[in-house]
Amino acid sequence: MATRRLGQQTICLPMKPAICAGAACVGPKEGEGPLGAVFDRVMEDELYGQQSFELAERQMVLDAARMAIQKARFRESDIQFFMGGDLLNQIISASFAARELAVPFIGLYGACSTMSEGLCLGSMLVDGGHADHVLCVASSHFCTAERQYRFPLEYGNQRTPTAQWTVTGAGATLLSLSPRTAPMARITHVCMGRVVDLGVTDANNMGAAMAPAAADTLLSLFEDTRTAPTDYDLIVTGDLGQIGRSLLLKLMLEQGMPLKENACQDCGLLIYEQEQDTHAGGSGCGCSASVLNGYLLPRLQSGELRRIIFMSTGALMSTTSSQQGESIPGVAHAVVLESPVEKGKN
Amino acid sequence: MATRRLGQQTICLPMKPAICAGAACVGPKEGEGPLGAVFDRVMEDELYGQQSFELAERQMVLDAARMAIQKARFRESDIQFFMGGDLLNQIISASFAARELAVPFIGLYGACSTMSEGLCLGSMLVDGGHADHVLCVASSHFCTAERQYRFPLEYGNQRTPTAQWTVTGAGATLLSLSPRTAPMARITHVCMGRVVDLGVTDANNMGAAMAPAAADTLLSLFEDTRTAPTDYDLIVTGDLGQIGRSLLLKLMLEQGMPLKENACQDCGLLIYEQEQDTHAGGSGCGCSASVLNGYLLPRLQSGELRRIIFMSTGALMSTTSSQQGESIPGVAHAVVLESPVEKGKN
Repeated sequence: MATRRLGQQTICLPMKPAICAGAACVGPKEGEGPLGAVFDRVMEDELYGQQSFELAERQMVLDAARMAIQKARFRESDIQFFMGGDLLNQIISASFAARELAVPFIGLYGACSTMSEGLCLGSMLVDGGHADHVLCVASSHFCTAERQYRFPLEYGNQRTPTAQWTVTGAGATLLSLSPRTAPMARITHVCMGRVVDLGVTDANNMGAAMAPAAADTLLSLFEDTRTAPTDYDLIVTGDLGQIGRSLLLKLMLEQGMPLKENACQDCGLLIYEQEQDTHAGGSGCGCSASVLNGYLLPRLQSGELRRIIFMSTGALMSTTSSQQGESIPGVAHAVVLESPVEKGKN
Repeated sequence: MATRRLGQQTICLPMKPAICAGAACVGPKEGEGPLGAVFDRVMEDELYGQQSFELAERQMVLDAARMAIQKARFRESDIQFFMGGDLLNQIISASFAARELAVPFIGLYGACSTMSEGLCLGSMLVDGGHADHVLCVASSHFCTAERQYRFPLEYGNQRTPTAQWTVTGAGATLLSLSPRTAPMARITHVCMGRVVDLGVTDANNMGAAMAPAAADTLLSLFEDTRTAPTDYDLIVTGDLGQIGRSLLLKLMLEQGMPLKENACQDCGLLIYEQEQDTHAGGSGCGCSASVLNGYLLPRLQSGELRRIIFMSTGALMSTTSSQQGESIPGVAHAVVLESPVEKGKN
């Protein structure tokens, strides 16, 4: 069997697995943001008709998963693997959602990089013929994350200017080699990231902690595929936010691979208006998951975008590691997505 | 590309990825148990020369990983993916260990099923040519788990008779299609499990919560591969313990697929003596990880075992889900391991 490995980190997918469908379910604040109209469902309130925020997050995952399956004209029993994760301890949103679906479950933890971690793994499994149809999910919820990582909401603590706002949202993406509908996009390459840590210890500045990992993965992808930033219509990072994005642009410039400001966007900045008081921007697994499935995939399907890099970024610390004085390691996984529309056809 | 899927859940691996090497590093209590002599390293105390139990667990992961790489005559830079996880929130043992290795990191969360979750995924990636060499790790530490899930050790709480004892241990397994040493075993099939929950809510009886998932995966594997328990020298479960194992035997009998008592063993029962006061037996990701790498792989390599099912089992609850009154979902992932020794050759 020939290797599909290109260079050090990138893997080429000769079968170009199709993204058959994507679905995104978000909270009310995200619904009021600039992308509000593109999401499949906007919750009326943070509880989504449930008894707890945790149950609401789980329900978002389930709803996004079922919408993606339905859009792709599959049944739950057609799905071979349900893979994904979230920010909660022991990824209870994903695993309890998996309990409702009678589908083999692959639990992932990549912090906010989970959406692209799942797409990398899922597309390799489909490309290799090990799975027919794979559903990748990722979610986060502002209220469950605040409760677990920071303070009870009732405490009303102040946020630092570098802090990001955890997106309430879930995204689901269905991958297959034999789609039953017109594909939204195809995955041609994946690049799984190394853990990079330049010593940032401020848990309220995760963008800065993740930017070096984002640069590391991008540089590997460019080197391995012998491409440059200009070969892509768009490079979309997960949730670096204002500060992380500036740092990524600076790092890439220093490495001789400058990214054009307008061809490099960040899901954490796309999802909220400046006026929504989210400080440095959105974060959480649900941030890149909902922006990919609600906003980017339709633009690839229409041919408005031809070829993009989608790269979620994760900060891999825990409250324990931070309390023990550890710095924050970052990781970033990237996929190259191509439009199914041929050149000159739109 | 032809599908490698057999039946509903099982995947056949035509390239039969080799397990090149395995290494296990365990705590002092595990060193005093019946398998004490087979582990590569036994820590002198629970701190392993570190400042905290969390740092000790991370160091175990690193040491097991580096020993496996060295035994297989690889260098760290040869490894394409470092994949695995642990029981700690945000899997800090695995992700901080990954920071030390400049290798792309795939974070997994499958609770105590992590070792076989990693083997399933890793062997599919190697089989498909997406990775050359993959290192799978899993770990747990009695003191970090007690602190996080139960009570501070200083509290000295009493344990219920159904409680299990979290193993202090880490295991690392190196998978490849091009081994540089004689393979220890080959992976021929994988079967990824569904999340199964029969409503057990007692967090001190995880064996009972995991047994239905173990039965579900085993039954799928037998059906998909048209095999029966007698086709395997041994069926090894992760950490069902005394109670979970009895329940599994009962469930399999009811389903018309009885397991023979002596051909079905549990890592949680193998690792401790009755006199070690561990109640229902060992548990934790490190339990099946250390028993596989220290005890089972050498017996496959020698030909003493020809063909076994290795199936780690996980209880997917969190303290939050338990406090919110949820029952405990279980999951079990299985791999079929074959000896490299041909029949009649030993």
